[in-house]
Amino acid sequence: MINVIDGGITAPKGFKATGVACGLKNNNKKDFAVVSSDDIAVAAGVFTTNVVKGHSLQLTMDHIKSGYAQSIVINSGNANACIGEQGAKDALEIAELTAHLLQCDVNNVLIGSTGVIGVPLNMPNIRSGIRTSIAALSPEGGHDASEAIMTTDLVSKEISVEIEIQGERVRIGGMAKGSGMIHPNMATMIGVITTDVNISRGLLDKALKEIVGHTFNRVSVDGDTSVCDMVLILANGEADNSGVLKEDIEYKTFKSALEYVCTNLSKMIAKDGEGATKLIEVTVDGASDAEDAYKVVSAVAKSPLVKTAIFGEDANWGRILTATGYSGANFDPNLVDIFIGDLMVCRNGSALDFDEDKAKSILKKNEVKININLKKGTSSDRIWTCDFSYDYVKINGSYRT
Amino acid sequence: MINVIDGGITAPKGFKATGVACGLKNNNKKDFAVVSSDDIAVAAGVFTTNVVKGHSLQLTMDHIKSGYAQSIVINSGNANACIGEQGAKDALEIAELTAHLLQCDVNNVLIGSTGVIGVPLNMPNIRSGIRTSIAALSPEGGHDASEAIMTTDLVSKEISVEIEIQGERVRIGGMAKGSGMIHPNMATMIGVITTDVNISRGLLDKALKEIVGHTFNRVSVDGDTSVCDMVLILANGEADNSGVLKEDIEYKTFKSALEYVCTNLSKMIAKDGEGATKLIEVTVDGASDAEDAYKVVSAVAKSPLVKTAIFGEDANWGRILTATGYSGANFDPNLVDIFIGDLMVCRNGSALDFDEDKAKSILKKNEVKININLKKGTSSDRIWTCDFSYDYVKINGSYRT
Repeated sequence: MINVIDGGITAPKGFKATGVACGLKNNNKKDFAVVSSDDIAVAAGVFTTNVVKGHSLQLTMDHIKSGYAQSIVINSGNANACIGEQGAKDALEIAELTAHLLQCDVNNVLIGSTGVIGVPLNMPNIRSGIRTSIAALSPEGGHDASEAIMTTDLVSKEISVEIEIQGERVRIGGMAKGSGMIHPNMATMIGVITTDVNISRGLLDKALKEIVGHTFNRVSVDGDTSVCDMVLILANGEADNSGVLKEDIEYKTFKSALEYVCTNLSKMIAKDGEGATKLIEVTVDGASDAEDAYKVVSAVAKSPLVKTAIFGEDANWGRILTATGYSGANFDPNLVDIFIGDLMVCRNGSALDFDEDKAKSILKKNEVKININLKKGTSSDRIWTCDFSYDYVKINGSYRT
Repeated sequence: MINVIDGGITAPKGFKATGVACGLKNNNKKDFAVVSSDDIAVAAGVFTTNVVKGHSLQLTMDHIKSGYAQSIVINSGNANACIGEQGAKDALEIAELTAHLLQCDVNNVLIGSTGVIGVPLNMPNIRSGIRTSIAALSPEGGHDASEAIMTTDLVSKEISVEIEIQGERVRIGGMAKGSGMIHPNMATMIGVITTDVNISRGLLDKALKEIVGHTFNRVSVDGDTSVCDMVLILANGEADNSGVLKEDIEYKTFKSALEYVCTNLSKMIAKDGEGATKLIEVTVDGASDAEDAYKVVSAVAKSPLVKTAIFGEDANWGRILTATGYSGANFDPNLVDIFIGDLMVCRNGSALDFDEDKAKSILKKNEVKININLKKGTSSDRIWTCDFSYDYVKINGSYRT
């Protein structure tokens, strides 16, 4: 039983957070977030597969190797990427100043940066951001933090749940930001998850990696994988459960709740994709193997032609079949069935004389499901994406300027 | 010496063509083209790699196996794809009726269809189109044919050249259509090339395949590869050259001219991509091997973030480096140089303090060059694409309706 509760990343016991404005973004918008656990927590992370990696992200990949962390510092407005040596120096200074003020080990500070690439951080602003935010840390600060990590996001994204493990209440909180340059693996996407569960480092890592594989790594906004993407989790063990130490029913309960949190954050990211008017869920069934299944959902979710058709509420299934055809997956085009919502629009690779009014009413909704059945094997996959609108072009035609 | 001449596909001797309206498109627009050689010609073709293939295209792939053809019939407004058995029957009927009226062998008729997928051809209209167009065949009909194959193209695309081979004048003409669903290999793209050169079938095939590999197959509009794409060439031997029978200097002369024709048609397709305001040429140097070079230019040319930035005339080279990073190519991010036009904007993977005004003036032009140097190996590649505008979304949000 998963109960949704308030509080976001500060819902779990022993976490404080905040979000402040330090001048990296215009109009005095919040741009600096800190999340801190009262005690050292076990930690795990998943990072971008892009060959190019931001300087802040590189430091975090290094620091998390120990498996422990206490604080996460994130700035928006600047990706701290592709700056050269100065970028690495700045990342280290952020971690050092944070550690100094929080009186923790610098190796237990993780940092994230998101925003424009190739512009050095304004360090005077960053330093003031660190001081102000740490002074403002609060057990009610989760929402402010979720606002401070936004870039082109229109809405902040957070969720928190409570479950029972080993007879005790345990909480998981999460926040995330999108919303462009998003495709597996991963995206201009940062996810931060906190929990007070007592769990071994190995199981925390295993659960996160498995779940991210089919949640955060199944979100595509525009097919671009950024250089700063990460999902981090801290488990500080402040709940009273005795300890999740093996893959038993208690582990499964925790994993289900973590999956619930990650699924919800992932769908929020897709739905708030740049310029999006609709959340699109693309599923495939009957693929030969997992790789083929992924190829199909990825190709369909990336196709600008499919995404503009959905924006135009046009049941142009030919584009769905075309994308399936160039996905690289192995299948017989004469077996493929395609559904838009619960309406079959293509059977055995051929047009059906379907009800256009019904199709229109399905496509008018703000959540649209597309299912492709290859009828070849038994593998399935699913990806969340969004439609492609005028606003996507508007937002991205003038991001830097 | 390559001289550009008038006439398009009817510039070479012994070819007639025409384009008529038979009601497949609205507003009495031309939608049916025929190209016919007085004599049987040697023929070669390159076809879509999409697993899903249109019915007309499948018939043409079958007929061209003989290496000979006499006529090419193309309708726009309907792709004749994903219809099931009726689609194959209709394709055969088109070839049969054409062969009957032209008094040629049905196996020497090639057909192409382009337009919406999944809707059966209006065969009464098609039959009337065949009759009308064959009655109207003319040695001056090249331009009409180039108009009749257009779909969302804004301008018709044709070119013709004259060269000297073995002391005799030889002509090559070409026409093509885009303009969406275009990515290697191949696109909603049809290219037809005619020539009166005397050449062996094997050399014609070799020249076409080599040249298409770095011309038509290096055009990307939106990353979508369609089910109806083909480039066909007919060489009827009506010129007085004695015969290109081996890979000598005469073959090279022919190949250069064919490359000139294909390059020009490919750039016309990219420049007239749906909603395009700019032609973008993406080149990579210093890649480890040809495969990595292709991965880089393909990823950059497909990136909606790069393409919207160019539309917005924003020198956002971070997106170029990001796309390079997720392309799958193997390289050291700390070595990469990036140029926009002749302006270096990134050196050794780091930002340069470049002149934004100069960048703006480069990006204001209607042709923009992007060069990425990985400084790792010696392989290069090049792709043509276009920017991503509001109009792309508009055109594709309501194509079918």
